[in-house]
Amino acid sequence: MIIHLKNEVNSSEAAQIASEIKAFHIVYNNRNVLITGSGVKEVPVTIESKVDEFWVFPNDMQLSSKKYQSEKREVKIGKITIGGTTNNTVLIGGPCSVESEEQIRSSAELLVSMGLSTLRGGCYKPRTSPYSFQGLELEGLKLLAKMREEYGLNVITEVRDATQIDQIIEYSDVIQVGAKAMYDQGILRACAKTKKPVLIKRGFGSTLQEFVQAAEFVLSGGNENVILCERGLRTFETGTRFTLDLCGVAWLQEYTNLPIILDPSHAMGYAYGVPSLARACVAMGVDGLLIEAHPNPKVAKSDASQQLDHTEFAALLGTLRPVAASVGYKMI
Amino acid sequence: MIIHLKNEVNSSEAAQIASEIKAFHIVYNNRNVLITGSGVKEVPVTIESKVDEFWVFPNDMQLSSKKYQSEKREVKIGKITIGGTTNNTVLIGGPCSVESEEQIRSSAELLVSMGLSTLRGGCYKPRTSPYSFQGLELEGLKLLAKMREEYGLNVITEVRDATQIDQIIEYSDVIQVGAKAMYDQGILRACAKTKKPVLIKRGFGSTLQEFVQAAEFVLSGGNENVILCERGLRTFETGTRFTLDLCGVAWLQEYTNLPIILDPSHAMGYAYGVPSLARACVAMGVDGLLIEAHPNPKVAKSDASQQLDHTEFAALLGTLRPVAASVGYKMI
Amino acid sequence: MIIHLKNEVNSSEAAQIASEIKAFHIVYNNRNVLITGSGVKEVPVTIESKVDEFWVFPNDMQLSSKKYQSEKREVKIGKITIGGTTNNTVLIGGPCSVESEEQIRSSAELLVSMGLSTLRGGCYKPRTSPYSFQGLELEGLKLLAKMREEYGLNVITEVRDATQIDQIIEYSDVIQVGAKAMYDQGILRACAKTKKPVLIKRGFGSTLQEFVQAAEFVLSGGNENVILCERGLRTFETGTRFTLDLCGVAWLQEYTNLPIILDPSHAMGYAYGVPSLARACVAMGVDGLLIEAHPNPKVAKSDASQQLDHTEFAALLGTLRPVAASVGYKMI
Amino acid sequence: MIIHLKNEVNSSEAAQIASEIKAFHIVYNNRNVLITGSGVKEVPVTIESKVDEFWVFPNDMQLSSKKYQSEKREVKIGKITIGGTTNNTVLIGGPCSVESEEQIRSSAELLVSMGLSTLRGGCYKPRTSPYSFQGLELEGLKLLAKMREEYGLNVITEVRDATQIDQIIEYSDVIQVGAKAMYDQGILRACAKTKKPVLIKRGFGSTLQEFVQAAEFVLSGGNENVILCERGLRTFETGTRFTLDLCGVAWLQEYTNLPIILDPSHAMGYAYGVPSLARACVAMGVDGLLIEAHPNPKVAKSDASQQLDHTEFAALLGTLRPVAASVGYKMI
Repeated sequence: MIIHLKNEVNSSEAAQIASEIKAFHIVYNNRNVLITGSGVKEVPVTIESKVDEFWVFPNDMQLSSKKYQSEKREVKIGKITIGGTTNNTVLIGGPCSVESEEQIRSSAELLVSMGLSTLRGGCYKPRTSPYSFQGLELEGLKLLAKMREEYGLNVITEVRDATQIDQIIEYSDVIQVGAKAMYDQGILRACAKTKKPVLIKRGFGSTLQEFVQAAEFVLSGGNENVILCERGLRTFETGTRFTLDLCGVAWLQEYTNLPIILDPSHAMGYAYGVPSLARACVAMGVDGLLIEAHPNPKVAKSDASQQLDHTEFAALLGTLRPVAASVGYKMI
Repeated sequence: MIIHLKNEVNSSEAAQIASEIKAFHIVYNNRNVLITGSGVKEVPVTIESKVDEFWVFPNDMQLSSKKYQSEKREVKIGKITIGGTTNNTVLIGGPCSVESEEQIRSSAELLVSMGLSTLRGGCYKPRTSPYSFQGLELEGLKLLAKMREEYGLNVITEVRDATQIDQIIEYSDVIQVGAKAMYDQGILRACAKTKKPVLIKRGFGSTLQEFVQAAEFVLSGGNENVILCERGLRTFETGTRFTLDLCGVAWLQEYTNLPIILDPSHAMGYAYGVPSLARACVAMGVDGLLIEAHPNPKVAKSDASQQLDHTEFAALLGTLRPVAASVGYKMI
Repeated sequence: MIIHLKNEVNSSEAAQIASEIKAFHIVYNNRNVLITGSGVKEVPVTIESKVDEFWVFPNDMQLSSKKYQSEKREVKIGKITIGGTTNNTVLIGGPCSVESEEQIRSSAELLVSMGLSTLRGGCYKPRTSPYSFQGLELEGLKLLAKMREEYGLNVITEVRDATQIDQIIEYSDVIQVGAKAMYDQGILRACAKTKKPVLIKRGFGSTLQEFVQAAEFVLSGGNENVILCERGLRTFETGTRFTLDLCGVAWLQEYTNLPIILDPSHAMGYAYGVPSLARACVAMGVDGLLIEAHPNPKVAKSDASQQLDHTEFAALLGTLRPVAASVGYKMI
Repeated sequence: MIIHLKNEVNSSEAAQIASEIKAFHIVYNNRNVLITGSGVKEVPVTIESKVDEFWVFPNDMQLSSKKYQSEKREVKIGKITIGGTTNNTVLIGGPCSVESEEQIRSSAELLVSMGLSTLRGGCYKPRTSPYSFQGLELEGLKLLAKMREEYGLNVITEVRDATQIDQIIEYSDVIQVGAKAMYDQGILRACAKTKKPVLIKRGFGSTLQEFVQAAEFVLSGGNENVILCERGLRTFETGTRFTLDLCGVAWLQEYTNLPIILDPSHAMGYAYGVPSLARACVAMGVDGLLIEAHPNPKVAKSDASQQLDHTEFAALLGTLRPVAASVGYKMI
């Protein structure tokens, strides 16, 4: 249940009520909002006089639900805005991993030359083997920060586990919670305490319901700036790396109020399919794309097969613009 | 291995050679073509002098492979053509099941009014329970034939199992091999002996490799008019009915020479998501869409939840045209 | 709904009633039984006076349901019996494919020497490529019949599609409906018209509910001798060929009244794991095992990697007996 | 590659070499062992004179591989030992969540009365909704510690994310890394620095290869006490909660040297199927079972449907003993 308290209830009183009824308390759109589990179907009698409005739900998709707020939420990333009524589709590019200053600078310059705003690059890599390249870690974060400073770009980078979440919050403009960390409450609860945008990737073995509930961890903790990112399910098909779930995207668009960014690079796993898939994504009227691009994919230290080279990445944007326009969106 | 025999080898001699080396023999583009398993990597010495050209393959995707023929095959469906260099995307509409003359006539008139050419409707329904509506069977086929005659439409309908394949071949313009029948050799071998177009739906538990090999059953038997149809995989996600595999479509576009039609209705399972998904499909530059539409979905005898009503179907086409145009295709 | 008509209603009257209410009519345990879809929750008023007893169901698992008949059904296979209260676990062995008289005779002699009763061997192989070995077809069936005659063995062989179902019914003691044919109504409806036991394998992409409903096609058509066979699901795991669903077996044991045979060979795909998995299966108190064994697996024309050699097969039985005994069962 | 250095190389020299060739360095069985990625196929020339023995591998399953050490590893849990040549199958029982002192004491007394040694109970619950019961956290750990002290039981409890790993290491005898945390390097790297046994559950969307590589994170960091736990895959089947992958267990038994414990409770999701599945597990000769049991499952705060009551749990052990004996194992 979500409860809007009356305007006359001040914030500390609201916190007190929340504690009594074991609810979460947030301030959203200048209102004191309480959230209990969806099992609660009636307003507790003791607080009835304080309640302005309330919503009951069939399950724990509450703050993220169109039933609660039918308009898509707006999220600001530095100087750009996605979601809401902006009809913007942000193209986020950059390498899988930050590998060197030279490499990430090349990516940054590419984006700037294309008029794009947001640079991705992994520093803490969630590799499945201890013997693989694990990322430049803090050194990588500092390189991203340098790019931000020199080129005015937003940077987005992934948190691998809760031990580096404070660093990621400090250094990035968008905190990326990776697919393997989607259930990580240490991360999600920390993300709830900042106001920086959080992009949550759907686990490749996670249901839509669980995905949205991961967002609820952040929203119910007080950070309203959540973006969902679909990046492919693990299925029996091995011809491609994962299976991008666009049916799921249609479901998310129908039932949730959160902006959606898609990651066709990880889903496909092979560069040849990324442009075609990216066009499919854009045609759904989504709020952004995450595309891996590397100055020289052949020597990339991770995900070599799926990264576009810079020529391909630039060409891609050219083909995305008319598709976006055909559904009333604009690539930014 | 695929072998092109020299022009001087006549057809009966070719058949004789095929029999000796246990190969399939077809005539394709006025050539005698032999096909063995992909395990054969060298031309048998005894026939070397008869061979013009040959191709070896890493697996049994042979006739359908871009390695053999890089240009997309062209398939004629009545007066329209898809594939090849046509850049046509055919929109096929109609109800899940033919239920009555009134109903199917309403569908036919809708298509005609929209300038569309091809009507779908199931007569032998592959229901999973013996206690569900099983379709009008032969009576339904006759209604489809009547619509063809009266309205000049192509009709496409599904074969459920090998016992009615002869009827389906007789009555339909495109033979639809359903997802549950994809492995059915009784059907595939019968389809190989006609020249009517065959639309093979991918089994929801079938790999891309198996899917293409189902097409090889038809192609190697002498019918070159094969269309592939992706309609969703069965995954752990239950929020939608199936998971449309557009990564797989990118794979098929990269590796095969067959036209591709997508079926977002069955993948999604819910009408609300069909338009958005359909736009995603069209943006990939595919050769067609199969969309379920019913004059009154609420009373449909099968798949009630996923069928568009006629207003929605007409509106859909309006939104698909600009998307198709944005990738250089034309809705027909 | 299942309806038991009163004893005074004779069979032709029962058929008449069935036709009126659009129900299936079978004679089961010397009773006239009608079966409608599970959507019917009340006995039609017009036939109330003819009804002895009736059962309503939440879904179309009806005749196979423990709600209808709580005791496990008994099925006779030649001179042996499984299911019911027999606590027999039949070990069915033999090669993936019948390849030659010498080979299948070797298998038959092995079974006889081990005191076993039932020989398996495929004649119509549901291969996914047209270029693979497709089986000896009718010639293979005749070899199996010869083995039956000479050694007194039961034979079980697979029907690939509806075009050969009559042959299979004629030549085999148990009709095997393969995983890829589980939905094939041409096959299922034909199986319903014989009294020979039918072993239905679960499709690797099929739900338990659909699996049981395939059995309902046979049961509702009048053949009560149905055996279920779990043989592995297709999952994302590629280290093994399929994933044997023993959770599903527990579900079937809880909810259905049908005997269950397991096929660890196809699930595992590799001979090394078959004995260990077979012991797991037996410990669940199942009614039988299908194990592939070949005189010389290395040269097998299909499924070479998963077939045990004859020494391994004989050793396996030795290890299965104590496991069966530990759960109150007997290997036969 | 795994390298055994010569005995004459002391530990600090070994560490120096490891650093030079970017390898992990551990001391295992009183030897200095270096581990590089499996991409390294030849001993670096510069250290050849220091090398006693080495192994190359096709992939990053190295320390856990039977190729490196064919004997199963032995792991001590308090006073009991599993793995190695013990042929012990430990039955670990207890509730899903520690809910109160009364409840966990009841569980502890049950185990003691049955002669069992190891108590499970969750304190940090990895719930997928922020609005569900999240566990008693530190208070729960203290209750477990109290049970250990009073009843001499080993306790095993789950770490949810890296923020509480230090607490879990301090309070538990076996650190349980849950399925949702299998990829969590913050946890795995911390587990590598203790010598306490670590039970790693396989992610429900994780491949066998990734599962074993999670173990490599711990092994390569210097903790050799790793136990693998299979608990079910997420598949399309919804009749049961997950699909226990016993084919995967056969694979693990063939290729790895780690003890294996199975969790049929989470796989099945329903108490009715747990005993039958547990017998299947035991028949595979595994090293242990994790079974959820609650004094009163109906009021359990989590996983109510799958927990056995105490009578069922006691009865289960009675049926497991003969199965274990039939494969040469002993329930402890």
